[in-house]
Amino acid sequence: MTREQLFEQILNKKSYLCIGLDTDPLKLPQHLLDLEDPVFEFNRQIIEATADLCVAYKPNIAFYEAQGPQGWVSLQKTLQVIPKEIFTIADAKRGDIGNTSELYARAFFENMDFDSVTVAPYMGADSVKPFLTQAGKWVILLALTSNAGSQDFQMLRLEDGNEEYLFEQVLRTSQEWATADQLMFVVGATQSDYVQRVRQVAPDNFLLVPGVGAQGGSLEEISRLGMNRQCGLLVNSSRAIIYASSGYDFAERAREAAFAVQREMEKLLEELL
Amino acid sequence: MTREQLFEQILNKKSYLCIGLDTDPLKLPQHLLDLEDPVFEFNRQIIEATADLCVAYKPNIAFYEAQGPQGWVSLQKTLQVIPKEIFTIADAKRGDIGNTSELYARAFFENMDFDSVTVAPYMGADSVKPFLTQAGKWVILLALTSNAGSQDFQMLRLEDGNEEYLFEQVLRTSQEWATADQLMFVVGATQSDYVQRVRQVAPDNFLLVPGVGAQGGSLEEISRLGMNRQCGLLVNSSRAIIYASSGYDFAERAREAAFAVQREMEKLLEELL
Repeated sequence: MTREQLFEQILNKKSYLCIGLDTDPLKLPQHLLDLEDPVFEFNRQIIEATADLCVAYKPNIAFYEAQGPQGWVSLQKTLQVIPKEIFTIADAKRGDIGNTSELYARAFFENMDFDSVTVAPYMGADSVKPFLTQAGKWVILLALTSNAGSQDFQMLRLEDGNEEYLFEQVLRTSQEWATADQLMFVVGATQSDYVQRVRQVAPDNFLLVPGVGAQGGSLEEISRLGMNRQCGLLVNSSRAIIYASSGYDFAERAREAAFAVQREMEKLLEELL
Repeated sequence: MTREQLFEQILNKKSYLCIGLDTDPLKLPQHLLDLEDPVFEFNRQIIEATADLCVAYKPNIAFYEAQGPQGWVSLQKTLQVIPKEIFTIADAKRGDIGNTSELYARAFFENMDFDSVTVAPYMGADSVKPFLTQAGKWVILLALTSNAGSQDFQMLRLEDGNEEYLFEQVLRTSQEWATADQLMFVVGATQSDYVQRVRQVAPDNFLLVPGVGAQGGSLEEISRLGMNRQCGLLVNSSRAIIYASSGYDFAERAREAAFAVQREMEKLLEELL
């Protein structure tokens, strides 16, 4: 998917919502458990109920990997029911030496046709570039994550005369590998103090923003600080939407929760774009 | 597995060889391709031919993930034929926010009973700690990797008054999370210029050393610089051993290649330990 197609979808849907399909078998509604593939059935109904309100779906791969081979089957089937115009993110945080990253790229881009993969930057250029070989396929690089551990290394200051943080160097160096047409960054909604620094180094790139909701980040704040001329934000919500109810009405309640976010985003787009 | 058990195995086998099961379906001997699970059959025969010469097996998970659900089946079956006294490494380079890293830990430690997982440090403490909750289960943290991209971030100097590199800070900070009984580090054999710096910060930890062979690192050099009183090294070789031949004699040739490395290690242990 191109950047323009993504922006067009944002304008059409008046939404920059990404829904995290972090589907935990232990949290599924009881009435799904007797089905052949409860995880897929849950995802299918969530997608059907929310596809007009969001522009991206992001399965966190750990949830599927923890279920063994069956988890990968559920994931593949899930991808097949996501409408083609919606951006898909394999939240996998992969990254290995070059010839090995190629295999991960094959797994997510060819076997499963995701639009993008989240990648960890620690191993540098040759661990990231194999994900950048096809136009329309994206890397979403970890920059400043939403968790407490982001303080440990991402916020270290470098001896470069500019008092830059490591995450700023990651933003800067990685832009030598790809343009904003193939490269997004993960920036947690809990990091609003630093979003202006992110936008100084990376004005054009889309940011994938986790951490709104359960982790305490504010949609309004991150939007005011981070939005650019093409919106430039995909704000993720997982638990608050997909687990809005654990009863028969789970999909209906998920739609209501997604609709509430979409309406807030519509207002913010009108004001800020 | 405890550190003492690992050291005992090294003494018994006179070897600190780790064999990388980076099994690529495109490189399998022709005569295996008609079998039901050629990847597993290849691994089974390699393991049978080399188990007395090495102390660890390390499947790189990308090779299995790239094969879809069947890859995970082959991986699980492979683990079941590795003798229990041999240390097993899931070379997965995972790492995510705390509750998600828990799921990866479950996938590799519970579903599959690996002894250890390689983990990327960028997301900090709460991304690593979920892998450290069970005694005898290990984190092998990326510190200074063997690839060219290690220059991009791992070798950045920090503004800490000591001109430390980022990788040194990773070594230092992570030792607040676990002792040398649960924490190893990845240090590439191509990084011999820096192994003494690694040993200053991490004298007791085992180092998992990729990069000997195809990537150009020297076994002798890394051993002289990196060995400690409990050996403290697991030196990995993948392609040079498992693809020593692509014919009917692949397992026999793999054994010969592993035996040559083991003999060199035996001499180095006699001299250096």
